[in-house]
Amino acid sequence: MSPLPFSKISSPLNALLAATGLVAVAALTMPDVAERTRLILAVLLGGIWAVYVLQLIETLVMQRTRDVRDRMPAIVIDMLAVFVPLAAFLLVGSRDQSLCCAIWLLKPLRDSTFFRLMARVLTNEAHNLIGVTSIFGIVMFSAALAAYIIERDVQPDKFGSIPQAMWWAVVTLSTTGYGDEIPQSFAGRVLAGLVMMSGIGIFALWAGILATGFYEEVRRQDFVRNWQLVAAVPLFQKVGSAALIEIVRALRPRVVPAGAVICRKGDTGDQMFFIVEGRVIVATPNPVELGSGSFFGEMALISGEPRSATVSAATEVSLLSLYSVDFQMLSTSCPEIADIIRKTALERRGATPKA
Amino acid sequence: MSPLPFSKISSPLNALLAATGLVAVAALTMPDVAERTRLILAVLLGGIWAVYVLQLIETLVMQRTRDVRDRMPAIVIDMLAVFVPLAAFLLVGSRDQSLCCAIWLLKPLRDSTFFRLMARVLTNEAHNLIGVTSIFGIVMFSAALAAYIIERDVQPDKFGSIPQAMWWAVVTLSTTGYGDEIPQSFAGRVLAGLVMMSGIGIFALWAGILATGFYEEVRRQDFVRNWQLVAAVPLFQKVGSAALIEIVRALRPRVVPAGAVICRKGDTGDQMFFIVEGRVIVATPNPVELGSGSFFGEMALISGEPRSATVSAATEVSLLSLYSVDFQMLSTSCPEIADIIRKTALERRGATPKA
Amino acid sequence: MSPLPFSKISSPLNALLAATGLVAVAALTMPDVAERTRLILAVLLGGIWAVYVLQLIETLVMQRTRDVRDRMPAIVIDMLAVFVPLAAFLLVGSRDQSLCCAIWLLKPLRDSTFFRLMARVLTNEAHNLIGVTSIFGIVMFSAALAAYIIERDVQPDKFGSIPQAMWWAVVTLSTTGYGDEIPQSFAGRVLAGLVMMSGIGIFALWAGILATGFYEEVRRQDFVRNWQLVAAVPLFQKVGSAALIEIVRALRPRVVPAGAVICRKGDTGDQMFFIVEGRVIVATPNPVELGSGSFFGEMALISGEPRSATVSAATEVSLLSLYSVDFQMLSTSCPEIADIIRKTALERRGATPKA
Amino acid sequence: MSPLPFSKISSPLNALLAATGLVAVAALTMPDVAERTRLILAVLLGGIWAVYVLQLIETLVMQRTRDVRDRMPAIVIDMLAVFVPLAAFLLVGSRDQSLCCAIWLLKPLRDSTFFRLMARVLTNEAHNLIGVTSIFGIVMFSAALAAYIIERDVQPDKFGSIPQAMWWAVVTLSTTGYGDEIPQSFAGRVLAGLVMMSGIGIFALWAGILATGFYEEVRRQDFVRNWQLVAAVPLFQKVGSAALIEIVRALRPRVVPAGAVICRKGDTGDQMFFIVEGRVIVATPNPVELGSGSFFGEMALISGEPRSATVSAATEVSLLSLYSVDFQMLSTSCPEIADIIRKTALERRGATPKA
Repeated sequence: MSPLPFSKISSPLNALLAATGLVAVAALTMPDVAERTRLILAVLLGGIWAVYVLQLIETLVMQRTRDVRDRMPAIVIDMLAVFVPLAAFLLVGSRDQSLCCAIWLLKPLRDSTFFRLMARVLTNEAHNLIGVTSIFGIVMFSAALAAYIIERDVQPDKFGSIPQAMWWAVVTLSTTGYGDEIPQSFAGRVLAGLVMMSGIGIFALWAGILATGFYEEVRRQDFVRNWQLVAAVPLFQKVGSAALIEIVRALRPRVVPAGAVICRKGDTGDQMFFIVEGRVIVATPNPVELGSGSFFGEMALISGEPRSATVSAATEVSLLSLYSVDFQMLSTSCPEIADIIRKTALERRGATPKA
Repeated sequence: MSPLPFSKISSPLNALLAATGLVAVAALTMPDVAERTRLILAVLLGGIWAVYVLQLIETLVMQRTRDVRDRMPAIVIDMLAVFVPLAAFLLVGSRDQSLCCAIWLLKPLRDSTFFRLMARVLTNEAHNLIGVTSIFGIVMFSAALAAYIIERDVQPDKFGSIPQAMWWAVVTLSTTGYGDEIPQSFAGRVLAGLVMMSGIGIFALWAGILATGFYEEVRRQDFVRNWQLVAAVPLFQKVGSAALIEIVRALRPRVVPAGAVICRKGDTGDQMFFIVEGRVIVATPNPVELGSGSFFGEMALISGEPRSATVSAATEVSLLSLYSVDFQMLSTSCPEIADIIRKTALERRGATPKA
Repeated sequence: MSPLPFSKISSPLNALLAATGLVAVAALTMPDVAERTRLILAVLLGGIWAVYVLQLIETLVMQRTRDVRDRMPAIVIDMLAVFVPLAAFLLVGSRDQSLCCAIWLLKPLRDSTFFRLMARVLTNEAHNLIGVTSIFGIVMFSAALAAYIIERDVQPDKFGSIPQAMWWAVVTLSTTGYGDEIPQSFAGRVLAGLVMMSGIGIFALWAGILATGFYEEVRRQDFVRNWQLVAAVPLFQKVGSAALIEIVRALRPRVVPAGAVICRKGDTGDQMFFIVEGRVIVATPNPVELGSGSFFGEMALISGEPRSATVSAATEVSLLSLYSVDFQMLSTSCPEIADIIRKTALERRGATPKA
Repeated sequence: MSPLPFSKISSPLNALLAATGLVAVAALTMPDVAERTRLILAVLLGGIWAVYVLQLIETLVMQRTRDVRDRMPAIVIDMLAVFVPLAAFLLVGSRDQSLCCAIWLLKPLRDSTFFRLMARVLTNEAHNLIGVTSIFGIVMFSAALAAYIIERDVQPDKFGSIPQAMWWAVVTLSTTGYGDEIPQSFAGRVLAGLVMMSGIGIFALWAGILATGFYEEVRRQDFVRNWQLVAAVPLFQKVGSAALIEIVRALRPRVVPAGAVICRKGDTGDQMFFIVEGRVIVATPNPVELGSGSFFGEMALISGEPRSATVSAATEVSLLSLYSVDFQMLSTSCPEIADIIRKTALERRGATPKA
């Protein structure tokens, strides 16, 4: 039903495979590699290619249940990953054949939600980013023009044309500073100082736009995803719309693999957990298993005492965690939910010593 | 009535023309350009100049309906773009004539709202920017003085005077690091380390001021613009003032060119759309056309199902989009609007299968 | 009564004087300066010193009305500015005498509110800044140690001891990159890549801490100052405490010199103004003068039409400006104030055509 | 009862000891150090090691009252600090023995809350940081591949293989710019410009993620800590849950050492103080001592007048400070508390002149 399990398994594997392949591609370009190593690397590339062929088949055949449009990027990337190296092997001369495997750089883009997030941020902020890039361009050309006029007679070999001066301008404006072209005249150095300061300013704008745009998008996506998760917890289904928005904002989703410890006895606890899917084991003297819709960890939150038991994941568990600060706010806006949580905490506390 | 159509067409065109001109200017300064290429480039510059003459005439004559003060910057830039190269052609010696076409750098500033935005940000934050720049100056002078005292005997050719040491200081403080002047003594290197760290700190302040100032201004302008757009949607006209502010904050304007697809059948939808101006076609079996004041895309938002139909723009459409998170909030603060949207969604859903 | 007029006049003057003095100090260190220029610069320094003597007297004698503790930093800086160069002139050998005038770097700190702001930010964030600086130190030492172990046999002249490797580490960690020490081995270059990435991360933390701390302090100071200004506007005195906080947040203070135009007929207006102190002239056919406690510019805000008249400052005017977005919010939370503003707007609009 | 006193004393001491040790380690690697100095440094290292042995014993024996898991990191670090140099002394050859003392770099991590904070930030943001680092990797590999293809024939010694080109790519992408490998061809320089700009963008994302993540975590921790402190002030115990959250948000904790002046007569005051623990002396004609649960400094806040008396710490004092802006908000949301504060202010003001 959910496409997650597959992508979760294959995503780090894909990244690892692609990275291995790219390292092999890089190693093959080194002139002093022994013929034998070269052969091993070629076989390695072949092996990865074979895996990618299988993956392409799986993408085409096995995932028929998913909509074609959703699978489109994956199909395209998988096809490129198979056919570009194949074409290179058949058509290109020996030395550069392996370079075409660099197409595997695209593989990590295939499953990652992060790159889709980045693409949306860039789309949303396109207008501002183009604006700042224009400023970058205008400042760069102005700086190159000024440097050309100032320095062309002092260092005709380095500032003898505007394109040469532009190389200096871009290296300086980005505060990279290779040091291959340096103004020598007094005016040129004052100009360089101004260009460096402008560079920092432009950089700052870029940083501000990307950082703010990124966080707005992250928050929007978190809300959409949490909204769906919260709906799966029965406790929250009787809550009014206004309170629900606050809860969705307050909860943070977390996926824990089977067997992992979620909280440990004796730790100080600043969050409680709601189970969206999966089961956990509470390691009290008589171990208790909790399933979807249950919550745990509320005692430490209410009393401020250390965790009274270790809780670990019996299966892969999808959790929503609620921090102490957000619990306090929830108490104010949805007293009914807070009451249920407090009551359960008291019952459990009563139960524990008896056990 | 609206100045937008003209500026929308001419803005990228202007940028392209100016960029072409500037590339030609840059190319003409290269010493090894063949005489023939030089001629072609000169003709190209002449052509662009001719277009700018026409544009100046248009600005002066055709746009009489607009207020003079609004057109002033455009008129000044258009005049400079025509008369500076003309003066250069008549007065300056052959080599540097073309350089004067660099005045065309100003052309992109003519229509862009981004540069006006930047100008306001710089004005608003002038006080803080001057403050940080003073700190930059004070740290730079102190660093130069200290480096001069420490290194003047070690490297008299590189740190022999404060102005020379200031060159080192600015290159280091901006973390550009050309590498032409490097302190050799132990004390000088400790000083350099401190200067680099101060540089990062000053840079950080600059970044913070520009980024925050930029976003405050962007939000203020967005509010003013959205306020006017929201007023054009009948659905929102019965809403109280407090709710209206929330709606204005929540909606995001978007302009879609004629023929473009706005949402595609089968996509997961996290936003709905209000039409401010223009018409869209909903590609249901019996295609429906919606005009100004209508909304669509609400079904995917309410049910969480994929889009039930592809919607594309029949004319250029000005839309306001509402994200799922904001729709939930709207439901809370203006239940009446949310009810209308939900009721429409139910009616349409009822209608679709019959169609 | 207010210390502002003096500081406002003297602050840029002080900065200019100090800057001139420091340029002279820098110029005097250049070896190829003619004897005559040297004399002129010395006289210039003497002149500035004389001005500073007068300023010291003024600070000591004239400002008796102000509290000593408030004047303390100014007194100390003024004394240093006079007595350090004096002592240098009497005690130090000829070449370095002028260097002591670098104490004038402190002069701009004397009146500036910005530096006091910065000092508070650094105090508030001291804990976090020390933490990040420790990380910087730990990463730098680790990087230097690793580079020393990796590169000491490859380049014993450049990485032959940890202090030498630390120079490389700080230059790389700050992304300055002079290029005088570059790892040559493969492991050294991988290390360098990691160090650069860590450098960017540490930089980012620094930037985040300084930028956020700066803005929190700016907002706190703005609130305190606006609170006092708002109290001077009669219209706001009947408002309840909750609404007053919103108003204080919404208003932005602005000082306009006598004669300056505040808003121009025909402009699109997105703010209105409240007069805290001073008088403005509204250039209607029968010019009207408004004084403290009045407001203007509300018509453009309410109707969205261009400004109906030019308003300029008759005296220096202290204003509070209210942006359109904040006016809408004010309308919601303090309907009574919004009503007064709207009623006045209607009356004035009624009055204008008759005039 | 509280682990604070020990960690507060030992934390700067530990940092100082570790720093001294590391300086000695660094100095010992310098080739031109005299044999005698070498001996002194070795003795110094031995001394620090002895202190660390004592500290390890203290950690193991004295702090039995604390839970083992809480002490675990400290125990591990203390053991490493003792046994790694010991093992090095017994096993490794003479030159590199001292290098193993670099393990003392870990000592500052032992008590610092800042590093635990950083660890949580990195954990919380791991997903995004990995995403941006992947982008860094992909851009770096693409840049290296492109540079290799473009420059391998121009500069076969510098761009002759992808690993060599990757060195250039990472140096350029991080805007470090050593200047040892510089593209010479036109296409290579255009590529370099694009790489620099991408570098700035990636840097910006990193900065945004770290800075935002850092501040979210700081605020969460502040809330948890303040919540506990606020509970110790009787005045706040009658307040409802919603108001309490606001108070916890508004108050800022501060620890003042015994004898320090908290506020000085005649200063303008923009904050008042609540005493969580410790005692302060109010230097009125008849000095008054205030203890836990009292507050002071409220008069300056209410009347806007300068502080009427100097207050200094009699013992080490743990305070909560409330800024003027937050006091105004508190007045609105918890009028009862504001009334108590105002009434006390009036009583005190009545009392002061009589005294």
